[in-house]
Amino acid sequence: MTYAFDADTMSSRVSDNHWQFNMVSDWSIGTNPNGGYLLACLLRAMATLVPDTLAPVAVTTHYLRPGLAGKPADLHVNVVRLGRRTATVTGTMEQEGKPRITCTATFGHLESDTDNNTSSTKRNLAIAPPDLPSPQECISRLELVQGVDLPIMSRLDIRVDPRYAGSGVRDEAVITGWLKFSDDRPTDILALPLFCDSFPPSVFTLYGPIGWVPTIELSIHIRRRPHPGWIKGAFTTNDLTGDLFIEDGMLWDENDQLVAQSRQLQMILTKT
Amino acid sequence: MTYAFDADTMSSRVSDNHWQFNMVSDWSIGTNPNGGYLLACLLRAMATLVPDTLAPVAVTTHYLRPGLAGKPADLHVNVVRLGRRTATVTGTMEQEGKPRITCTATFGHLESDTDNNTSSTKRNLAIAPPDLPSPQECISRLELVQGVDLPIMSRLDIRVDPRYAGSGVRDEAVITGWLKFSDDRPTDILALPLFCDSFPPSVFTLYGPIGWVPTIELSIHIRRRPHPGWIKGAFTTNDLTGDLFIEDGMLWDENDQLVAQSRQLQMILTKT
Repeated sequence: MTYAFDADTMSSRVSDNHWQFNMVSDWSIGTNPNGGYLLACLLRAMATLVPDTLAPVAVTTHYLRPGLAGKPADLHVNVVRLGRRTATVTGTMEQEGKPRITCTATFGHLESDTDNNTSSTKRNLAIAPPDLPSPQECISRLELVQGVDLPIMSRLDIRVDPRYAGSGVRDEAVITGWLKFSDDRPTDILALPLFCDSFPPSVFTLYGPIGWVPTIELSIHIRRRPHPGWIKGAFTTNDLTGDLFIEDGMLWDENDQLVAQSRQLQMILTKT
Repeated sequence: MTYAFDADTMSSRVSDNHWQFNMVSDWSIGTNPNGGYLLACLLRAMATLVPDTLAPVAVTTHYLRPGLAGKPADLHVNVVRLGRRTATVTGTMEQEGKPRITCTATFGHLESDTDNNTSSTKRNLAIAPPDLPSPQECISRLELVQGVDLPIMSRLDIRVDPRYAGSGVRDEAVITGWLKFSDDRPTDILALPLFCDSFPPSVFTLYGPIGWVPTIELSIHIRRRPHPGWIKGAFTTNDLTGDLFIEDGMLWDENDQLVAQSRQLQMILTKT
């Protein structure tokens, strides 16, 4: 069986540095393909250029134009530096001759991969997850009023903590909850960039649905290799000025390991 | 009068997309030029490609190899997209034919630039600075034992909060303090990427000087246009596993405005 995420993010090799795929509409928010889906497709092609033993530890992506669902896309990927400890790769996704997103990723060794390695410092600092009701006690993102169709909810099972499940219901911009693939595809490193960009915007909890909030830039740090099940997410906005705000996110696996941190710069585009 | 920072970060135009400068040793930590100095040189050349009304709101930089002080450097800069609200530019710094750092920056409008603009949402969230003793009550970075020469201290005046001024003195990886240019060059947007990378590593406060901690990747978000005087900084490490840790930083101006946020992925290279 091929899981939907693999079928929809896998591209065809034109050359080592050029890949192509068809962007499907199944991962969209409204008519716009989710930015995490675009990144997963691009990062998958970028990862073909580095050894399998390395994980993408720092992934920085700038969003230039919305993706076009139903259209083919070209992925151009290049090694910037291939070292012993780390490798850096750039990638750009184009559709209709125009760049849509551009990404630089540095790959390195995660601790679980180097546990028996003398390079490990044996010093650790970790951030604990928030207390959450069970997934069964949380509310599906499908049941939230968001003023937009959510095709992505056919692919992802997103459950929001009831305390944050509403618009303008809190005096802080926070959202927490659970997510996994609807078809129970195991959560792995490649799923995490998508999962960093799949919850409703945390500003909606404070202000209500204030407009479209496209991502300008998304930085993701993969910190530990995830257990394959449910992921816990917590997203917060503490810094909003003018049209620009920062949303910080953290993902933990079922064993309460912090597996990824994310930071997005987003823009508020008020409907006019 | 030309301030040292301007003299040392200004490059010569070969073409719109190619600039050259000589990397000086005055901004080094030990024998390695500071990563924020490298970034300031590159970002200065990248900014020539976008209108002056735009500020670098999201700057993501991957560090590939140390810079070589005393050697010439080539800066290759390219516009990825020039839009009405934002512009995205990439840049790479090379020395001796090898890339040293690669950066993507998205430029946009800061709130202070759009105050009279209808696009402003008039919603704001801000993070307050920590309580700090005055600069006069803080301790110069020069007086800290760090096991390395600090040429950069001839250029920067860095004052560390006495509570964090030591190695292994706290049970948390935090450092706070003040900084400005030694020659009183006014603090501006271009200074902030350097200032995000100038304090002693916060992990030293917890663990002592555990080795060289090179930056793998540095993301900077410029949030507000700074007042020209002292900058308050606060840097924290909460997530360390294996050889890799994340340091989060915030900078405020004298008016307690949050002017920049930073996040670095750093590696611990234990001396062997």
